[in-house]
Amino acid sequence: MNRHILSILVENQPGVLSRVTGLFSRRSYNIDSLSVSVAESDDVSRVTVVVTGDDGIIDQITRQLEKLIDVRDVTELTADSSVYRELALVKVSAEASVRPEIMVLSNIFAAKVIDVAGGAMTVEITGSQGKIDAFLEQVSPYGVLEMARTGLTGLPRGGKRAIR
Amino acid sequence: MNRHILSILVENQPGVLSRVTGLFSRRSYNIDSLSVSVAESDDVSRVTVVVTGDDGIIDQITRQLEKLIDVRDVTELTADSSVYRELALVKVSAEASVRPEIMVLSNIFAAKVIDVAGGAMTVEITGSQGKIDAFLEQVSPYGVLEMARTGLTGLPRGGKRAIR
Repeated sequence: MNRHILSILVENQPGVLSRVTGLFSRRSYNIDSLSVSVAESDDVSRVTVVVTGDDGIIDQITRQLEKLIDVRDVTELTADSSVYRELALVKVSAEASVRPEIMVLSNIFAAKVIDVAGGAMTVEITGSQGKIDAFLEQVSPYGVLEMARTGLTGLPRGGKRAIR
Repeated sequence: MNRHILSILVENQPGVLSRVTGLFSRRSYNIDSLSVSVAESDDVSRVTVVVTGDDGIIDQITRQLEKLIDVRDVTELTADSSVYRELALVKVSAEASVRPEIMVLSNIFAAKVIDVAGGAMTVEITGSQGKIDAFLEQVSPYGVLEMARTGLTGLPRGGKRAIR
């Protein structure tokens, strides 16, 4: 069981996301995270999926993805040949007395406090999953009230590749 | 036709994402962006969907989402009562002679160059959609080779709300 990051370039059509996620759910395969938005041109979107699973099954899913109409390219992003990042918004319980401590932690992690209201601070943090998890470990004693994470998005290193 | 940002808290179960995206695709409703990852506890995930459409139809979809098994809460995020952000990785065509110009642009937008290889620079930028679009407008004359955007993720301002 390994973590795999699949970057899927699709035509920007209604229903394509549903077909992509359906391929995973039909195998009762849980998606760790997924993000999708418009890519380098308006007619294509890039879907980044993080799944943990058996290498053989991931290969099967990749081949099935490649056969889907509206899928232009499927690339597995690996640590040595790609860059990837994640964004998280973390709402931490923070009465006035502990705000300086949370500010200091945010600075150490190059994170940014973007809201203070109702006894809570909301922090924006970007980085690897490991960095975000390390930050969460530090703030969890204060109480993480709510969290929104985008999941990883990424690109292969180097210049543009040839895509059908 | 207005842009709507829906924040959907779901049980972390295989198939739930497929059911959520299916609700949109059955109406041939195009999703502008979607991101999903684990939320404040391991058993729940937060799905953030950006759609542009008729207010009445969005209300219908919201009510249908609320009826789905595994959906705990649906909240519409609005500009005055929420914070939201997006992360983008932008690979710009960049021979050595133009790299200083792209560095300067990156600094102005508080973006970060995270890779240089094969005649290209990859820049990480976080912010509102408007900020990212403004950056893209500035770098597009150099040539945007590839782009991966997470789409918006967000949280309501203030302390934690009561959720069923």
